[in-house]
Amino acid sequence: MAEADNHRQPDDPPVQFRALEWVPQPAHLRLLDQRELPRRETYLQITEVDALVAAIVTLAVRGAPALGAAGALGVVVALEQAEREGWDESRLRAEIDRIRDARPTAVNLAWGVDEALGRRADGREAVLAAALQIVADDEAANRELSRVGADWLLARTGRERLRIVTHCNTGALATTAWGTAYGIIHELYTRGAVDLVYADETRPLLQGARLTSWELTRDGIEHVVQADGAAASTILRGLADAAIIGADRIAANADTANKIGSVALALACARAGIPFVVAAPSSTVDLRTPSGAQIRIEERDGAEVVTFDGAAIAPPGTRGFNPAFDVTPADLIAAVVTEHGVVEPARDPDPRIMERIAG
Amino acid sequence: MAEADNHRQPDDPPVQFRALEWVPQPAHLRLLDQRELPRRETYLQITEVDALVAAIVTLAVRGAPALGAAGALGVVVALEQAEREGWDESRLRAEIDRIRDARPTAVNLAWGVDEALGRRADGREAVLAAALQIVADDEAANRELSRVGADWLLARTGRERLRIVTHCNTGALATTAWGTAYGIIHELYTRGAVDLVYADETRPLLQGARLTSWELTRDGIEHVVQADGAAASTILRGLADAAIIGADRIAANADTANKIGSVALALACARAGIPFVVAAPSSTVDLRTPSGAQIRIEERDGAEVVTFDGAAIAPPGTRGFNPAFDVTPADLIAAVVTEHGVVEPARDPDPRIMERIAG
Repeated sequence: MAEADNHRQPDDPPVQFRALEWVPQPAHLRLLDQRELPRRETYLQITEVDALVAAIVTLAVRGAPALGAAGALGVVVALEQAEREGWDESRLRAEIDRIRDARPTAVNLAWGVDEALGRRADGREAVLAAALQIVADDEAANRELSRVGADWLLARTGRERLRIVTHCNTGALATTAWGTAYGIIHELYTRGAVDLVYADETRPLLQGARLTSWELTRDGIEHVVQADGAAASTILRGLADAAIIGADRIAANADTANKIGSVALALACARAGIPFVVAAPSSTVDLRTPSGAQIRIEERDGAEVVTFDGAAIAPPGTRGFNPAFDVTPADLIAAVVTEHGVVEPARDPDPRIMERIAG
Repeated sequence: MAEADNHRQPDDPPVQFRALEWVPQPAHLRLLDQRELPRRETYLQITEVDALVAAIVTLAVRGAPALGAAGALGVVVALEQAEREGWDESRLRAEIDRIRDARPTAVNLAWGVDEALGRRADGREAVLAAALQIVADDEAANRELSRVGADWLLARTGRERLRIVTHCNTGALATTAWGTAYGIIHELYTRGAVDLVYADETRPLLQGARLTSWELTRDGIEHVVQADGAAASTILRGLADAAIIGADRIAANADTANKIGSVALALACARAGIPFVVAAPSSTVDLRTPSGAQIRIEERDGAEVVTFDGAAIAPPGTRGFNPAFDVTPADLIAAVVTEHGVVEPARDPDPRIMERIAG
């Protein structure tokens, strides 16, 4: 998708791979199968709603911003399948709803579906154009929020080089390109301002160990992988200068749903007196959700916890408890960064604070 | 080891298995190989220092109280090997030092070695008797601290049934019998006071998923296994009434070294307003260490983090950062329980608070 590179600033590094991409001929949605990373770099060719829903549910494609784009392009997939198979309107609506509801926590998925669907009266080409605009806008937002976030962090910490803890994967794999929290790290790296990244492995599905370290390795950024349980200690021991995470949904008051394990970093940062930063495009802000108390937390299959690569790690019959996300309260968040700027919820509590940078 | 059951109260459940046991004929230290659990229940017959050090380093035997007993019985193993192989005094001392230093964080290991060694002038039988006394004392301490801890928790929470988060393994597998934090849970269970146990899986070596769930399953205690990253969220969401952990070393001021990941539970409990409890026999208290700042944290091989069951989970060359323990500051600890009673460091800060229950 050559046009996406138009959103680069002159000095921005080029895009090396894309988590998702629309291929016009033969028309399909191409997904980098993240279940197979880091072992294999393989791609899925999506032409049917079933395959897309399965890819979303099993996390072949994941990350809130990427899900927004996948949802929008998924509407095009559904329209084409409807045409091929002669679906009536109610069937088409039901299939699109399946895409929208494939995962409940990330606001971007439903948002992307609805954005694309809003152009339906103008025809398939208009829907595709809207979806491609989401792809392009997400990359541009990521590039911009990364510059803004890097500026803020360097100013706040007063340091020239930073040691950063991050959780889950928020890089090019989680977005249409570049990344959110990872984008800030990458931006800092291009400025020579990264000393070391502590990447939490992110159990149960190891997005940190598998995906973030894959991106950090490709990008040449110095890093270590640590168990999720080590993150709070790394912060309290003074080994880190900041923690940066992405978001799956940011409520109006800045309470933030993100990958399970995030809130422990926030608690530790508050105690250690270092900044805990949330980075996301404005499409992740959900102003209709007043606070974290109203965010529905996806609970995934317990088998993801009590098995590993298909083998049991606990005695037969052991139940796993597998909430996929947690909610970090706004008062623990030093900064939320979007492409529209920075707010500081911990210093500046405001039940509608996210209105200022929701665009 | 029939004598250990003498320390049971009349209504105490019988001991079902032992992590370690001295077998007189032919003389050897018998270790339940915890690396193989829950898949296989196999035992190691230890007659040489090399094998004992390897068992300790690779966590075939682990848990601070169990390591105290293993250290003490290890002195007997060394004495017998010295006799068989004609070691001189300096060789014998060097071999015993290898046992003492096999793991640095748990105070009990060095303590157990030194306790047994202190009887050396009285001959091999006296050393064995001292080691067996450590075994017996540990079980008695565990039984007593479990009663004390259960009483305290029921009184503090005012609840009849508790939902409890625990981390790592602190049961019969981590001690000579019964358990510490797990002992309190087991004691509460015998009183009908356990609603649900959330067992953290405890990466990287999964002592929670593999060992604690094995014990909970055997004991019939309702439980789920969760990723370590889920613990803080479980606590903040109001799904738990208390968190209970063991300890590898408790400083004079009650700062507590325990398995990596523990401090996140403490941070979350403090915010949620529920008690965070440390349970350990008094042999784990180290009054010579003023605070957590002086505790040496064992850093284990990073390969434990970036591999899983021998298979790489991160790209080739990725470094793992693998501190085995963290330190929970005393002000986050509602109660420390030993067989000598309870102190409440969060409410009652005192740089020598542990003197009151160190025995």
